Amino acid sequence: MPPLPDLIAPTAHDVVEAAHKLKGIAHRTPVLRSNSIDEMLGAQLFFKCENLQRTGAFKFRGAFNALAQLDEDQRERGVITFSAGNHAQAIALAARLLDMPALVLMPDDAPASKMAATREYGAQVLTYDPVTEDRETICQRLALERGMLLVPPSENRHVIAGQGTAALELLEEVPRLDYLFVGVGGGGLLAGSLLATQAAAPLCRVYGVEPEVANDGQQSLRAGHIVRIALPRSTIADGALAQALGPMVFDIAQREAEGIVTASDEQLVQAMRFFAQRMKIVVEPTGALALAGAWHGGMDVRGSRVGIIISGGNVDLPRYARFLAD
Amino acid sequence: MPPLPDLIAPTAHDVVEAAHKLKGIAHRTPVLRSNSIDEMLGAQLFFKCENLQRTGAFKFRGAFNALAQLDEDQRERGVITFSAGNHAQAIALAARLLDMPALVLMPDDAPASKMAATREYGAQVLTYDPVTEDRETICQRLALERGMLLVPPSENRHVIAGQGTAALELLEEVPRLDYLFVGVGGGGLLAGSLLATQAAAPLCRVYGVEPEVANDGQQSLRAGHIVRIALPRSTIADGALAQALGPMVFDIAQREAEGIVTASDEQLVQAMRFFAQRMKIVVEPTGALALAGAWHGGMDVRGSRVGIIISGGNVDLPRYARFLAD
Repeated sequence: MPPLPDLIAPTAHDVVEAAHKLKGIAHRTPVLRSNSIDEMLGAQLFFKCENLQRTGAFKFRGAFNALAQLDEDQRERGVITFSAGNHAQAIALAARLLDMPALVLMPDDAPASKMAATREYGAQVLTYDPVTEDRETICQRLALERGMLLVPPSENRHVIAGQGTAALELLEEVPRLDYLFVGVGGGGLLAGSLLATQAAAPLCRVYGVEPEVANDGQQSLRAGHIVRIALPRSTIADGALAQALGPMVFDIAQREAEGIVTASDEQLVQAMRFFAQRMKIVVEPTGALALAGAWHGGMDVRGSRVGIIISGGNVDLPRYARFLAD
Repeated sequence: MPPLPDLIAPTAHDVVEAAHKLKGIAHRTPVLRSNSIDEMLGAQLFFKCENLQRTGAFKFRGAFNALAQLDEDQRERGVITFSAGNHAQAIALAARLLDMPALVLMPDDAPASKMAATREYGAQVLTYDPVTEDRETICQRLALERGMLLVPPSENRHVIAGQGTAALELLEEVPRLDYLFVGVGGGGLLAGSLLATQAAAPLCRVYGVEPEVANDGQQSLRAGHIVRIALPRSTIADGALAQALGPMVFDIAQREAEGIVTASDEQLVQAMRFFAQRMKIVVEPTGALALAGAWHGGMDVRGSRVGIIISGGNVDLPRYARFLAD
């Protein structure tokens, strides 16, 4: 039996293939500009708005691309995943579009609105206790029991390739970028963006951006091996709370990334307010990582052409209102 | 002496000319979709996002187009206007881009942030007392004294033609619209959109949308002559507080519009929340008029292709936060 395709590391070619699969299914999200941020940073910034993607985040790209690989028989058995957030909704919608059953394991303290949205897209939601139970173990057991395919949020060839299509579209529309900043949680978006850049803009320097308190990726790149951190202290960037990169993502990041910088919660709020006030877009805290990194990460971007991937916009309105008002 | 060109009524041809003038200067704003609103209304909705336009509103189109008509001598003398809001910033930026002096008359109770933004773009701001003074009289006197050209927010051939380019772009991108909904304050956007539709989609039915408490345009179309209302009672749609349409706008609206419907403040808040939660965009209360009209205006849009012009996104963050949180 050949190895399962999702255990093979993705290449730039897979990103191009994914772009074909997603054509007419995922939105080609707009690239927005802002004169005021250009003046503040002395650079030209190009914002790829994945908050305007279906389900409100780039995650739909990877989820749909992974499920679009399956044959009839696999589709009938369905898909399972674990996620507290955007990957859950992405898998749920992708499965619905492909007429597949989907089972999503969510922590029992996940926001009610995210569970409701995942169910609305037609997925079955199971909950677990994140303090006492390990979600990956439960998921693998359920996948075996039910014959369902497990599609994790990051460590999967077709998920990573799908996530890379956002950067690919940006680079097609905006050639000769000098820098690209990308938020990092599990690292799927970073890995995919690195492959896209390798193909379409090899001279572009790509930086990941993590929350200060969840900088496992930064530590890993510095150490040269995967560093696992304790459950991160609280940050508002609830989509970037990973404890460690997976090996597939780490290998690509180590080979291709210029580095990983960090952003504080205060910097994320500043970026979210900037997005609302000057660019008129709603960005979730995790989605503001890339701009915060370009703004405060210590790179000298003056005179450069800088790509920013806004990864998502899913934030409960009352919580969002507090960020804007405080 | 020939009549001043801005006293001639605009035609569809002027809108096409304006589109050429604005090319590469105004943003070609994206057209966004939302599956959830399509499902709710049983129609296909296409949102032209002028909240993502330069200065945060469609007003930049008309302002720049009007100033781009001027010769060297007129540019040196500069431009004057009156506006409490988006037209002020639009004239200020357009004048800066064309290296002209600009003087903007604002009510002394205008939000500090709007005055600051207008000054930031380089315009000189003068204030007046809206209770005791008439802004048009002051403006005409100043224009005469200083030899400046008065460019009002709506009643001007090139302003109306410029505003029409938003609908023209929408119709180029989305052919065969059955309906187009457009918010109405002074009516420049409605008049321009009607001219664009006349040229590019003559079968499309165009509706204006006014706040319930400021429905002078609706009354005027019903009466067959311009109806002037008392200073409107309070509405959150602060960009649509006109007391009467001007004759140029009224003539076009009477000839070409299907009708004017109204929206309540509650419906505007519902639409603003929808924009934030599902479409991830910041829309000011006035900017939400068009969607509120399509949603609750009583037209049977089921099965139709419906264009919505989101006119602007300029709202102070603390105020916006209250709309989202309440």
